[in-house]
Amino acid sequence: MDKMCTEALPLTMSSPEKQETICIFGTGDFGRSLGLKMLQCGYSVVFGSRNPRMSSLMTSGAEVLSYSEAAQRSDIIILAIHREHYDFLRELTEVLSGKILVDVSNNVKINQYSESNAEYLARLMPGAHVVKAFNTISAWALQSGALDASRQVFVCGNDSRAKQRVMDVVRNLGLTPLDQGSLLAAKEIENYPLQLFPMWRFPFYLSAALCIFFFFYCVIREVIYPYVYEKEDHTFRLAISILNRMCPITALTLLALVYLPGVIAAILQLYHGTKYRRFPSWLDHWMLCRKQLGLIALGFAFLHVLYTLVIPMRYYVRWRSRNITVIQVMTKKENPFSTSSAWLSDSYISLGILGFFLFVLLGITSLPSVSNMVTWREFRFVQSKLGYLTLILCTAHTLVYGGKRFLSPSVLRWCLPSAYILALIIPCTVLVVKFILIMPCIDKTLMRIRQGWERNTEFSKSAVNGKSDI
Amino acid sequence: MDKMCTEALPLTMSSPEKQETICIFGTGDFGRSLGLKMLQCGYSVVFGSRNPRMSSLMTSGAEVLSYSEAAQRSDIIILAIHREHYDFLRELTEVLSGKILVDVSNNVKINQYSESNAEYLARLMPGAHVVKAFNTISAWALQSGALDASRQVFVCGNDSRAKQRVMDVVRNLGLTPLDQGSLLAAKEIENYPLQLFPMWRFPFYLSAALCIFFFFYCVIREVIYPYVYEKEDHTFRLAISILNRMCPITALTLLALVYLPGVIAAILQLYHGTKYRRFPSWLDHWMLCRKQLGLIALGFAFLHVLYTLVIPMRYYVRWRSRNITVIQVMTKKENPFSTSSAWLSDSYISLGILGFFLFVLLGITSLPSVSNMVTWREFRFVQSKLGYLTLILCTAHTLVYGGKRFLSPSVLRWCLPSAYILALIIPCTVLVVKFILIMPCIDKTLMRIRQGWERNTEFSKSAVNGKSDI
Amino acid sequence: MDKMCTEALPLTMSSPEKQETICIFGTGDFGRSLGLKMLQCGYSVVFGSRNPRMSSLMTSGAEVLSYSEAAQRSDIIILAIHREHYDFLRELTEVLSGKILVDVSNNVKINQYSESNAEYLARLMPGAHVVKAFNTISAWALQSGALDASRQVFVCGNDSRAKQRVMDVVRNLGLTPLDQGSLLAAKEIENYPLQLFPMWRFPFYLSAALCIFFFFYCVIREVIYPYVYEKEDHTFRLAISILNRMCPITALTLLALVYLPGVIAAILQLYHGTKYRRFPSWLDHWMLCRKQLGLIALGFAFLHVLYTLVIPMRYYVRWRSRNITVIQVMTKKENPFSTSSAWLSDSYISLGILGFFLFVLLGITSLPSVSNMVTWREFRFVQSKLGYLTLILCTAHTLVYGGKRFLSPSVLRWCLPSAYILALIIPCTVLVVKFILIMPCIDKTLMRIRQGWERNTEFSKSAVNGKSDI
Repeated sequence: MDKMCTEALPLTMSSPEKQETICIFGTGDFGRSLGLKMLQCGYSVVFGSRNPRMSSLMTSGAEVLSYSEAAQRSDIIILAIHREHYDFLRELTEVLSGKILVDVSNNVKINQYSESNAEYLARLMPGAHVVKAFNTISAWALQSGALDASRQVFVCGNDSRAKQRVMDVVRNLGLTPLDQGSLLAAKEIENYPLQLFPMWRFPFYLSAALCIFFFFYCVIREVIYPYVYEKEDHTFRLAISILNRMCPITALTLLALVYLPGVIAAILQLYHGTKYRRFPSWLDHWMLCRKQLGLIALGFAFLHVLYTLVIPMRYYVRWRSRNITVIQVMTKKENPFSTSSAWLSDSYISLGILGFFLFVLLGITSLPSVSNMVTWREFRFVQSKLGYLTLILCTAHTLVYGGKRFLSPSVLRWCLPSAYILALIIPCTVLVVKFILIMPCIDKTLMRIRQGWERNTEFSKSAVNGKSDI
Repeated sequence: MDKMCTEALPLTMSSPEKQETICIFGTGDFGRSLGLKMLQCGYSVVFGSRNPRMSSLMTSGAEVLSYSEAAQRSDIIILAIHREHYDFLRELTEVLSGKILVDVSNNVKINQYSESNAEYLARLMPGAHVVKAFNTISAWALQSGALDASRQVFVCGNDSRAKQRVMDVVRNLGLTPLDQGSLLAAKEIENYPLQLFPMWRFPFYLSAALCIFFFFYCVIREVIYPYVYEKEDHTFRLAISILNRMCPITALTLLALVYLPGVIAAILQLYHGTKYRRFPSWLDHWMLCRKQLGLIALGFAFLHVLYTLVIPMRYYVRWRSRNITVIQVMTKKENPFSTSSAWLSDSYISLGILGFFLFVLLGITSLPSVSNMVTWREFRFVQSKLGYLTLILCTAHTLVYGGKRFLSPSVLRWCLPSAYILALIIPCTVLVVKFILIMPCIDKTLMRIRQGWERNTEFSKSAVNGKSDI
Repeated sequence: MDKMCTEALPLTMSSPEKQETICIFGTGDFGRSLGLKMLQCGYSVVFGSRNPRMSSLMTSGAEVLSYSEAAQRSDIIILAIHREHYDFLRELTEVLSGKILVDVSNNVKINQYSESNAEYLARLMPGAHVVKAFNTISAWALQSGALDASRQVFVCGNDSRAKQRVMDVVRNLGLTPLDQGSLLAAKEIENYPLQLFPMWRFPFYLSAALCIFFFFYCVIREVIYPYVYEKEDHTFRLAISILNRMCPITALTLLALVYLPGVIAAILQLYHGTKYRRFPSWLDHWMLCRKQLGLIALGFAFLHVLYTLVIPMRYYVRWRSRNITVIQVMTKKENPFSTSSAWLSDSYISLGILGFFLFVLLGITSLPSVSNMVTWREFRFVQSKLGYLTLILCTAHTLVYGGKRFLSPSVLRWCLPSAYILALIIPCTVLVVKFILIMPCIDKTLMRIRQGWERNTEFSKSAVNGKSDI
């Protein structure tokens, strides 16, 4: 409908009804874009400028006046000015007294100033009602109408009436205001547009580290070892074979790391006998980025699937398969069908497919719009029950892949076991501990702790007391 | 931005502005979590407790008082107490008179009590304004800030002013209030968090039944039959071959079952000559869960694609392909290229790919956030036109798969036809009936009926009258 | 929760609290559905009809009265009547004076009348407050409760109090009102439900044209040429081989066309030395449908992946591979392993997989619910950085695919180069120009222009002045 808004412009200008006037200080890019959007949505707009004759630049429909003249026209003044230039507002103290000043400014770095721009403005203009808003919206997006990313406008301010009026304006522009409380939230709001996937940082670095480790581990075993001992050039394996070893191992390890913190938390709760003792902060942080870990694991699993499915198309594989056939013909050797090999090959593939399928389901349910539609009970069912089933299937897939070779000493190269054995360590640990935790006796204690029961006698009274509370 | 809220805590406490005070009865897990969240979002919080000295447990920033003292501090009292303990409120009748009591309780089972908790509370405290809210939010989610699942808070109550104030609180906590009307809705709201995918239940059981039937059907034909007659051990087929037969058959049948109710409804409307006669309730229910049926069908189709793509990697397939080559070499037989075989093989694969592609498109457009962006005309275009195209492509894929063997008696085993023939029954029926329904003469009558026209003469007057109405 | 609403019906009817009454003129399908929904959500509903005795048709719970009687019962009158029949309202001018008339009508064609229905109504009834609403909601959806598609209700009107009251009703029905300003927006709101993917039209036709062109190009080279010169029947290639050539070429070309307008825009900005000169309208339109172009490209890439993965299963491929083996055995020729072939084959596949993986990531982040969660900085990072990386990987995939044959004259057929060479033209151009644009000297100028700097001397003053503005 943004297009609609744009096209309605010429008509809306002549609207018979008297519309609210909004004043914008500053004729920079953001100021102009915001002004244009407001004109399109039926506001009357007045720009305040140091040099009002510059109006040739203005979008038709808006007046450009001096700062003080413009300010007199409206209760709401939007400051599309850099913080560094707020000083000039001192001259306007009288005119701006009692008005709503909307701070839309952003900084260049996170925590650039000790005081947020909006709080600095409020200190500068104690007579005005400062509201922080619009800083998360991009000028380009306002111009183009292509508000693909966030339509959310975080709003904060100490005067709730002023905040409410700004939120009304936000709503009328087709954006979603989110009240963030008093001006004390301004610092975070100003930092928000500068952040780059903060919750993804730890999972990203962790998975990068795992990738690099497993990559070189496999290079040593599968490229350097044969080169040293058999003088064979296996470097071509770098392009697919090694990547297809690295991806599933990283995926399985990350998936297990999604469920490890829950297991650790349960052990800590059992150990302390209460749920009210805070977890160490690393565990808290870990638990908050489980979703990101899981999604990165899904990415690696997806790559693993693609790298596996292309195997029959690879030159090396076709060459080897042809050679095996030729040798079989030449040597006239029988090639009896082995039912156990067929079982092993098929069941390891089948487990992998089922595991991947459930993993994709988990990924889909973590899409914001899907997870918003489900109740908590459903969300927990999917993320915990289905999640553990996925982990079990993927671990079984890896175990069966090993098959008969599993832990046989012949696969050791320079004492290094096959890479997939490393991949099994964390998942198996998690599954074993989880299995112990869901045994009836332990599970019952854990449930009681999670419902607020506490073991320590000194709190027993409170526990009894708390029984009536939710 | 939840993190923001958390971090803003110490600052917000010293906020110069006077904030609204909210009273919470009960210091259980949910009460504490809600109180902490409210503190973070700028409210001042007072806990009411049987034993106020227990304040060591409280989050700093909130006072813990006796019930009556706490209640005097605020207009809004949140009862974080189990229904079984509401009795004690009788002692506070006077203090609570005229106040807003927010019932946040949940039950353990669906329809546990004949009267909803909120209505029971309203009967207990006739002088207070009871509002049901917050019961769909999890304490853990409030604590961790990880509100991945539903941020929706269903609110109901008989006093609209009280409801409005509670909805304002909900909004300020960053949650989405949804007004559900009077307290009579409380029962459903209390049942809501206990439900586990109610709309998915019928599609799930149906597809499970189909799966099991087709699984055993294929086991009989492809494992037991060769074992009985040729003493061959084909059990290894269970892992992939049989699953890869079961999945596409179930997927195609379910996809046809998505479109069958629409066809039945059209026939019923034609038969009755009106759209105002209610459908039988099984048809209504069936029509409401078509989306779920379609998504489960997509899941099976996805599994079918994966199971098909791994075929060239399977031990059995590689073994057989090698043997065929060896025999060709040994017998020095020619292997002429058959263009018709190439056409059959390629076109059946190609139809399957196109069908799967459209199926995935349908799945993507049924994501809540995507379907929310399209108009009704677009939604119907995708779900009906593209949907039928998908069904046609998938049915054609199955028909061409049969190819020359189709209905040849040689494939009968114990009089059982190939499984894919069973898969074709419902889709072909649906397509044939739909084809009849879209023939101009029938389609025109149907369109008139759907726009409100009625055949029966007794209503002809109303039909003429209704012509002016939308 | 819609189901809840439905089930709550019988109870809500007996609600002790006095609810607002809403009047609906017209007992057509939409009128009835809306009335039923309102009853379910706790409103009291009165229908106005030409022939009130027809009440047998009505849902129990609503009264049916004559127009004037019904209108007296409520402040809000919903006109579920076709525009053609608005005339009769003249008789009710007095009764309707000061009331809120809600126009819910739609037209059959876009821009059917020069004046929107709502404006026509406002001219007809100058004493009433006309509000446009509900026209984007389908009667079927209201009936079934299956509001899968848009829950958004666009509202516009000249009287903001009247608009506000209608928006409250919309909200209470569980729908999302979107204020679109004055009645001048009614025309666009009435056109909205009639549109069919307007933003997708240009990308769709463009990709269809590309598809057709490349399809016939490949048919000429790979089916007609061998038929003419070698009398070989290669028609079976139409089903997969040709499609699998057409899909990747179209995908890569479309992907490059996503980034071409940005590059053209940058060149125009550099040429004009300002960002304030409007782009030609074709470029504006092109830039607004980049997302759609990208998603269609992803669709073709997805088809390419599927068509590639089935290669080893095709009859033709298995036949050829068997023949090669047989010939190798017969001629007793050696088949030495070529490391360079292995490298080429593996790295071209690997680049394709990585490119497709990033492409899928881009597609996921363009889902509305995902892009709504990210900040602008994050959105730009994904769409620009990751987007270019995807383009580089896919172009490299195609280049390496060519491998040694690349530009060798032996592949020319009727002077036509291989199709993949055509696919490389636009991507390589885009990448080369982009590479020039990000060279420090040019990039710096571009950044300054994008921050509002202008080269032309006449504006230099304004530029200096504008430096303080955002």
